[in-house]
Amino acid sequence: MEKIKVGILGATGMVGQNYIRLLENHPWFEVSYVAASPNSAGKTYEKAVSGRWQMSTKIPKNVSILIVGNANNVDEALGTCRFVFSAIGGDKQVIRETEKLYAKAGMPVVSNNSAHRKTENVPMLIPEINHQHIEIIPEQQKANSWNKGFIVVKPNCSLQSYLTPVYALIQAGYQVKRMVITTLQAVSGAGYPGVPSLDMVDNIVPYMGGEEEKTEEEPKKILGKIENKKFVKNESIKISAHCNRVPVVDGHTACVSLEFGSKKPTLDQIKKIWLEFHSLPQELKLPFAPEQPIVYLEEIDRPQPRKDRDMDKGMAVTIGRLRECKVFDVKFVGLSHNTVRGAAGGGILNAELLYAKGYIK
Amino acid sequence: MEKIKVGILGATGMVGQNYIRLLENHPWFEVSYVAASPNSAGKTYEKAVSGRWQMSTKIPKNVSILIVGNANNVDEALGTCRFVFSAIGGDKQVIRETEKLYAKAGMPVVSNNSAHRKTENVPMLIPEINHQHIEIIPEQQKANSWNKGFIVVKPNCSLQSYLTPVYALIQAGYQVKRMVITTLQAVSGAGYPGVPSLDMVDNIVPYMGGEEEKTEEEPKKILGKIENKKFVKNESIKISAHCNRVPVVDGHTACVSLEFGSKKPTLDQIKKIWLEFHSLPQELKLPFAPEQPIVYLEEIDRPQPRKDRDMDKGMAVTIGRLRECKVFDVKFVGLSHNTVRGAAGGGILNAELLYAKGYIK
Amino acid sequence: MEKIKVGILGATGMVGQNYIRLLENHPWFEVSYVAASPNSAGKTYEKAVSGRWQMSTKIPKNVSILIVGNANNVDEALGTCRFVFSAIGGDKQVIRETEKLYAKAGMPVVSNNSAHRKTENVPMLIPEINHQHIEIIPEQQKANSWNKGFIVVKPNCSLQSYLTPVYALIQAGYQVKRMVITTLQAVSGAGYPGVPSLDMVDNIVPYMGGEEEKTEEEPKKILGKIENKKFVKNESIKISAHCNRVPVVDGHTACVSLEFGSKKPTLDQIKKIWLEFHSLPQELKLPFAPEQPIVYLEEIDRPQPRKDRDMDKGMAVTIGRLRECKVFDVKFVGLSHNTVRGAAGGGILNAELLYAKGYIK
Amino acid sequence: MEKIKVGILGATGMVGQNYIRLLENHPWFEVSYVAASPNSAGKTYEKAVSGRWQMSTKIPKNVSILIVGNANNVDEALGTCRFVFSAIGGDKQVIRETEKLYAKAGMPVVSNNSAHRKTENVPMLIPEINHQHIEIIPEQQKANSWNKGFIVVKPNCSLQSYLTPVYALIQAGYQVKRMVITTLQAVSGAGYPGVPSLDMVDNIVPYMGGEEEKTEEEPKKILGKIENKKFVKNESIKISAHCNRVPVVDGHTACVSLEFGSKKPTLDQIKKIWLEFHSLPQELKLPFAPEQPIVYLEEIDRPQPRKDRDMDKGMAVTIGRLRECKVFDVKFVGLSHNTVRGAAGGGILNAELLYAKGYIK
Repeated sequence: MEKIKVGILGATGMVGQNYIRLLENHPWFEVSYVAASPNSAGKTYEKAVSGRWQMSTKIPKNVSILIVGNANNVDEALGTCRFVFSAIGGDKQVIRETEKLYAKAGMPVVSNNSAHRKTENVPMLIPEINHQHIEIIPEQQKANSWNKGFIVVKPNCSLQSYLTPVYALIQAGYQVKRMVITTLQAVSGAGYPGVPSLDMVDNIVPYMGGEEEKTEEEPKKILGKIENKKFVKNESIKISAHCNRVPVVDGHTACVSLEFGSKKPTLDQIKKIWLEFHSLPQELKLPFAPEQPIVYLEEIDRPQPRKDRDMDKGMAVTIGRLRECKVFDVKFVGLSHNTVRGAAGGGILNAELLYAKGYIK
Repeated sequence: MEKIKVGILGATGMVGQNYIRLLENHPWFEVSYVAASPNSAGKTYEKAVSGRWQMSTKIPKNVSILIVGNANNVDEALGTCRFVFSAIGGDKQVIRETEKLYAKAGMPVVSNNSAHRKTENVPMLIPEINHQHIEIIPEQQKANSWNKGFIVVKPNCSLQSYLTPVYALIQAGYQVKRMVITTLQAVSGAGYPGVPSLDMVDNIVPYMGGEEEKTEEEPKKILGKIENKKFVKNESIKISAHCNRVPVVDGHTACVSLEFGSKKPTLDQIKKIWLEFHSLPQELKLPFAPEQPIVYLEEIDRPQPRKDRDMDKGMAVTIGRLRECKVFDVKFVGLSHNTVRGAAGGGILNAELLYAKGYIK
Repeated sequence: MEKIKVGILGATGMVGQNYIRLLENHPWFEVSYVAASPNSAGKTYEKAVSGRWQMSTKIPKNVSILIVGNANNVDEALGTCRFVFSAIGGDKQVIRETEKLYAKAGMPVVSNNSAHRKTENVPMLIPEINHQHIEIIPEQQKANSWNKGFIVVKPNCSLQSYLTPVYALIQAGYQVKRMVITTLQAVSGAGYPGVPSLDMVDNIVPYMGGEEEKTEEEPKKILGKIENKKFVKNESIKISAHCNRVPVVDGHTACVSLEFGSKKPTLDQIKKIWLEFHSLPQELKLPFAPEQPIVYLEEIDRPQPRKDRDMDKGMAVTIGRLRECKVFDVKFVGLSHNTVRGAAGGGILNAELLYAKGYIK
Repeated sequence: MEKIKVGILGATGMVGQNYIRLLENHPWFEVSYVAASPNSAGKTYEKAVSGRWQMSTKIPKNVSILIVGNANNVDEALGTCRFVFSAIGGDKQVIRETEKLYAKAGMPVVSNNSAHRKTENVPMLIPEINHQHIEIIPEQQKANSWNKGFIVVKPNCSLQSYLTPVYALIQAGYQVKRMVITTLQAVSGAGYPGVPSLDMVDNIVPYMGGEEEKTEEEPKKILGKIENKKFVKNESIKISAHCNRVPVVDGHTACVSLEFGSKKPTLDQIKKIWLEFHSLPQELKLPFAPEQPIVYLEEIDRPQPRKDRDMDKGMAVTIGRLRECKVFDVKFVGLSHNTVRGAAGGGILNAELLYAKGYIK
């Protein structure tokens, strides 16, 4: 089988680098185009990231020699690839317009950006939870008069550490009413140079601009449904988030206290639900789908970011410390790899889903 | 004025070292006796802590030449000091017995240990909150047939980062019904050698044995009252705690979500209450009392442990990020210095209170 | 081909865990026996390391169910494996005796320990440098009246970051007279619990017991030769070492200043020598041999431990910053992965060499 | 006595903040003027550093209300202060010109900057070493036709960890011929935001632009002398430096190997020289002079940055691990506080010397 050619917009940044690293030897996709800001354009990719390549593996040979395109110029991408991963940065309004230009030109855009998360008809995907949200795509195309192009996004990285396990409980019939969540998030989430080391040696920072709002709001769309060809948010769940930056390279940890509706599972029932949980990505055997999306660790002091973030290629959520909560019903600790599951890996899984379901052709 | 002579039990450990550091040049107290386990006994203090002195100031000259006594032998302390700070470690039952032997011999024991926190008639003090709990001491002495000796304890270090601000609100007439608390605690809390560096480089540990139980239970006694010469716990407040270890030297951070009773203050009212809060230690101008017990920082990303833990000699609690909570009423971040306010400094403040009120003579 | 069965002595410690992790799916060897101290003996391996497994991959299924043997009892190993990797800890004299018992019983012992590094007739191997030192083995067997068993050791992990590049220059005909070396070593080198976090948050420790002596002495044996069936040390090279512990998980960095004899290569000649260097492990295509043993990085600020330690499965040495030295001739920075190349990975490469050359049958 | 009024140029940066912190309650000097770049000018100091104040003490009240001046406009400073500390950043040529304008206008400039370190007739001071270099100032004034103004600078922070102890040996009659130095430098040296945390979590960086050159060159001027009213460098000492950035907040560590001339002291003689070393700042009892400029620690694993950097208000150099060197004569580890002794504290000591000797009036 010939591989699908794919472009990376924002290829020189940290998320872009992760896409390139993770797509090396991908069974379905092949990076054929890289684009970045005008001042990288025209250089070889190797030259463009010289001194800025942050991955611990080398730049794949075939990508290092690609000539970097100008991400603002859609025409340069046409003909070189069938769809694009977007990891461009900068002003949200500009990002929105740029991604729409690609979609208009017939390119599916699998975006890592927050810019279109609130846009009507744009699905925000965690494939194990809301894979059926891709069915909105024809509405999106119709509304914009787009032909083959469209936009899908992934949610904020902080959600990945707890939303899948929470969804598994909801799907099993247990309503979740309220959650208080405190995250301990890795510095890679802020890119490079990102967080100053003076803030992260002998210190933590109890604040990240916009992070708590996203953590509180985005789950409502993801857990929502399509009614009359429109998204309807799930407003029945209340979330309060405290987001902290901690001196960890990769891996976001979440401490979760959770209140169920009137029907309450036992701790053993919860563990069983998590153990048995699987979804469409697993059934379709998508290459980046973790075999077991939720891994429960029985050790008393796990999950821990450095030791558990790489579980199942960094795509599984690891959970531990499920116990009774003195205020709500239960509490637990969740962990996911923010630059794999929470960024490039999650985007690749989205693209695999779209390809498997025929949206990317 | 001649200074009161004081002994340190467990003087070679980290809390003991902090007592010695903080008592250098104390206006009222003077270290005249140090005791530790039998295998340190008989050495000079300098020799006994050789290679283990963790403070960034030098051993005070007058203490370095003291001969270390055997903490298990009360007789060695008699005549050398008027009261003792206890920072002995080991088996809880043994600690309980040892501290009682000192009290029986006529020595007030100001303990840093958790061993007697649940013991009937033993006050667990945060002087700004429950200074009046020292009035139980005559009952304690009567019940044990002790003459001048008695035992007081301080609570777990994790409480200090949020309980005083919460108490200030209660005292101002706002009932607090429920709290979800997540702590990010410093490694010094585990002593030396304590937490392995392999757990604290590029990592956090979402578990500390017994810490969550203490964080949930101890406030009930501290916020309780004396009725019919007995402590009655405050059972009306529900607390759920998640305790995490993070790579910070000193300073415990707490993320707090809080639900009031029917009467709810505004954010501005809360800040005003905190700003104006003061208590007996401030009125008595105790040497270790912070001038302002609760310091509110308006910067959006504070408090931070390295930058704020030393506020007012490390004895103040710093608070920031007060905001609405989507699940409860309000949320905020609190910070206190765990080895100062939360350990030796807190113990010294307790002793100052007891001396000022005539319990230590 | 049927795989060679191998035992791990000291299997529950950190080096033992690394052996088990790295040998999963090894093309030639298969772990069939694990042994540790008497108080682990009798348990399944999974149970024996419960709460102590430090690897980021799971315990291989086939090893987790093995019953842990008593490492002190050679009889338990007999029949279960063809040779052993020794990672036992404790008293040097006891280790020496234990390893000799295995050799006496007919077991080749590939040791990670320092105990036998100074023992006559025991080769201390870095296969790219002194693979021919294995020719001493028949002498060792003769002297001890051993039949099939023997002992080989690997050197201290600090050497790996610079000795291969230095050897490459010597082999190319440039005498090396003097070296001043400063290492910045990772905490994993001290095992678990190892270095306390209070020493590694906002701190470095400029001392490691015995490390400087090993760094200065062991190269003389490795760079020596066999004459009249005995090792003769290379005494012509003088080394001075400063060894520091830094807050890095894995990866030892070495800053090297080096003085040549009268014949001095240019910087370009040195880079060419390193680029072209290869040795017997590469020729034999041993599974753990790095394709290119010495990788030179042109980026101005490399190598860096987290970003470069995994080069070529963690088995390559990465070098950077080659430049003129104002005191000697040249200086450079070297890096190697201390728990892979410098410990278990190095041991496996030694075993592969011994197997390929017929010493392990 | 009325205090001398002093201005801080570059007052909002990290070095400027340290000046303001350290000058609070200074017995001789009082901050009366602060200046920074045009976009801070016109604001109160408190407002100008809002969100950027990195000190762990609060902004001194009297400084917080000062209106920030434009550092490029000398006229604003005139009449407000008697001399200035310069901590301005940016282009070296611009800095040189700006500092000269202040000197021309009659202001002594005590600079923290590297811009004028190589300028003829500008003394680069470590007062314990080369206090007599201030005698060049009249020549500087004459050459520039300046009246009361002049410029003095301090050397790079990396020197402070070892040059005073080396000078003490030279002064005692032992020629020092060669030194190989490896530094492990703190992140505060790069200011804020400075070094990215992704480079400092589980990592070190073996490179700092320009640092090695300064470490090798600046000692020659400092150890030089004035002949015929000109500086003559000490070219007899050869230095090779390896400079590394490590995850430490404050405190530069240096590992030093040192070769003497033909006359070689014993280890005990060296310790005695260091113990007894004192110089003009000690004799003049300058407020910021450490009582004992060189403190030798006998503990086997010291000095360590977090534990020893604050020795004598952060102004002493701590030394440890003096031992024989296998390549040269001796080796040792030195430590100094880079933002106190190595920056603002060192600048203040320079100003104290100049005031005590009548150069600042």
